[in-house]
Amino acid sequence: MKPMGPIPPWFEAEEGMLLIEGSGVAALVDEAGDTPLFVYDMNVVRAKIALLRDAMPDGLHLHYAMKANPYAPLLAAIGPLVDGFDIASGGELEMALGSGMAAERISFAGPGKRDDELRAAIQAGVTINLESEGEAARALGIGEIVGVTPRLAVRVNPDFDLKGSGMKMGGGAKPFGVDAERASALARSVIAAGAEWRGWHIFAGSQALDAAALMETQAATVALAARLSDEVGATPPLVNIGGGFGVPYFPGDLPLDVKAIGLALEEVLTLPPDSLRGSAFALELGRYLVAEAGVYLTRVVDVKDSHGERFAIVDGGLHHQLAASGNFGTVVRRNYPVAIANKFGLEGPEQAVTVEGCLCTPLDRLADKVALPAVEPGDLIAIFLAGAYGASASPAAFLGHRPALEMLVGD
Amino acid sequence: MKPMGPIPPWFEAEEGMLLIEGSGVAALVDEAGDTPLFVYDMNVVRAKIALLRDAMPDGLHLHYAMKANPYAPLLAAIGPLVDGFDIASGGELEMALGSGMAAERISFAGPGKRDDELRAAIQAGVTINLESEGEAARALGIGEIVGVTPRLAVRVNPDFDLKGSGMKMGGGAKPFGVDAERASALARSVIAAGAEWRGWHIFAGSQALDAAALMETQAATVALAARLSDEVGATPPLVNIGGGFGVPYFPGDLPLDVKAIGLALEEVLTLPPDSLRGSAFALELGRYLVAEAGVYLTRVVDVKDSHGERFAIVDGGLHHQLAASGNFGTVVRRNYPVAIANKFGLEGPEQAVTVEGCLCTPLDRLADKVALPAVEPGDLIAIFLAGAYGASASPAAFLGHRPALEMLVGD
Repeated sequence: MKPMGPIPPWFEAEEGMLLIEGSGVAALVDEAGDTPLFVYDMNVVRAKIALLRDAMPDGLHLHYAMKANPYAPLLAAIGPLVDGFDIASGGELEMALGSGMAAERISFAGPGKRDDELRAAIQAGVTINLESEGEAARALGIGEIVGVTPRLAVRVNPDFDLKGSGMKMGGGAKPFGVDAERASALARSVIAAGAEWRGWHIFAGSQALDAAALMETQAATVALAARLSDEVGATPPLVNIGGGFGVPYFPGDLPLDVKAIGLALEEVLTLPPDSLRGSAFALELGRYLVAEAGVYLTRVVDVKDSHGERFAIVDGGLHHQLAASGNFGTVVRRNYPVAIANKFGLEGPEQAVTVEGCLCTPLDRLADKVALPAVEPGDLIAIFLAGAYGASASPAAFLGHRPALEMLVGD
Repeated sequence: MKPMGPIPPWFEAEEGMLLIEGSGVAALVDEAGDTPLFVYDMNVVRAKIALLRDAMPDGLHLHYAMKANPYAPLLAAIGPLVDGFDIASGGELEMALGSGMAAERISFAGPGKRDDELRAAIQAGVTINLESEGEAARALGIGEIVGVTPRLAVRVNPDFDLKGSGMKMGGGAKPFGVDAERASALARSVIAAGAEWRGWHIFAGSQALDAAALMETQAATVALAARLSDEVGATPPLVNIGGGFGVPYFPGDLPLDVKAIGLALEEVLTLPPDSLRGSAFALELGRYLVAEAGVYLTRVVDVKDSHGERFAIVDGGLHHQLAASGNFGTVVRRNYPVAIANKFGLEGPEQAVTVEGCLCTPLDRLADKVALPAVEPGDLIAIFLAGAYGASASPAAFLGHRPALEMLVGD
């Protein structure tokens, strides 16, 4: 048998049926009409946001990076709970505005913004996080053409990275933002050109579970923002210090100590450097807010043995949950937390089961030799930690299977 | 600089503009209306099929595994050139029938077929490649309910794998087919139940460039089919010996020697074992027929330098070409062949350029430090070998960007 990641501790069952917001998941599947089904629980999102609001310094803005999960009912429910949405495309701009989020609380990052995307964002009054001098020139030109003063922040490629992060987005040569040594010149030039300068966006990495590394990165980020603002000679209205808060997907992962991070950040921000007096600060989180709120439910279609190993074949797969198959940004395949949702929390013998998606490719493995109760066709498999980078980040059309259903509860 | 895979040798240019079927790609982009654009050239598909027909033994069936590329105009054009389509879902069944392919020339493999998919396939008269005893029981039951005699082949998990293949689909415990030692019993039982037994499906791996390994696997496959047929005591109408023919994606890859494979297979099939006298044989290929026919065209949105490295940011990315980013079934990221399509085949100095997709994630790297002519915004980047597992196998909705356009030429 191989280990799996930790099942979030708040999940309970009634007579062996996994509950989400008090409902048995079989009933939720009936309500949705079919499997595979993503269920997102707003209670979990609210609890994560409350935990953060409590732990972080007063006045710290909280942004939702909607790339993590752009499901429309979820956006509509999260919007009132956060201070802004961060978007990464023209499509996300439409979704963000459609959710009711005010344009002045939206900021747009992304290294390859097309002219039509810049134009739509500038016309709407969204802040553009500039990724290069070339993009700044295009944004200023488009602002003139459409007769709107563009709201521009400068995204900085910091001189440090976030240690222990799943994906490094700073340190060394990077496609994101401008190198720190050119950032203040770019800010000065957009101010001189008459744009509304919104401040800095500094994002050093993602999916880190090491609080000390995050604390160190946040302190370095604020220090960098102060130095750059000094060079500009102006106070940035907003400093987006990025995110990078991870969630425990894999065996041995422990939840992030956000209390410790909040205390350290409070210390950094209580007496900010002169050049940041009056600046607001924002934390930009996607995965951290929504990953644990999602459960992917997929039905066992077949149970078979091959050379002494047991396989449960399900009606879902990597076309909905690419990351759980280990094919998206991970080098070594490890098991997400998984359970038989209709045999949840039962005492009794377990056996090693490999959960295989329905796709006709050996890549489609959702769980490798995990310990589960005796599995039968018709059982519902739950894959936890499915609220971020699931439905929207998977190759939904691959092999012509149908897309997953999605459902929000607790809103 | 880092090496890239070989650009297919037949590509030419006119005044630096890459040509596909005699047209400059800039004109093709104008015709399609935008980038990113996949262009598929039927001339290349026809040439690959002609090469195979010439190299392989007379009478060998050639099937297209449509999972490689289900673009409707491509299916309609390939259908008349091959002996059948292999499908992997109910969605692909609809696409195959919609393309005009006759149901009796379609076979359906896939470890997680749902009851509704089995029903649709049996009613249409499609051959089901049975993946387990449980699936056989379901197929027989559905056949009775709908009053149609099911056409059933048995998919065998062989006791050997395809050496050097990118993905192993046989050898050891596998989710595909039934273990070889149980295959003849399953065939006997479906015959006894009154189904139409269509034969064997034996698929040992994919994306192999080693002709000797493929020859060895094919000989072992035919020998296994003979042994199993002996055990059944009946001649299989068709033996699908799988595929596994690879294409040269990466540095150092050489085209497969299909002539050698054809000669060896001819020797195997000229005097088939008694139990296979009268059987037809089929080769099932997806990637091999279409990968080299496709070019992905994406426009440079921005050119920027970071810490001395040059980045070309394009309007496409892994949401269309996941495999080229190294995030789908590969452990080590290597470069697909890539070029500046409007500066193709020109003499002159080159520089190291990293081609980065537009997605706001460090995973979205399409080419890492490849040697290209001086790159500018507006340039068209061509990624070759984009005809298989591109548009349909990538997370199209990720980050809210628009889907790629697709176009077939030469049909």
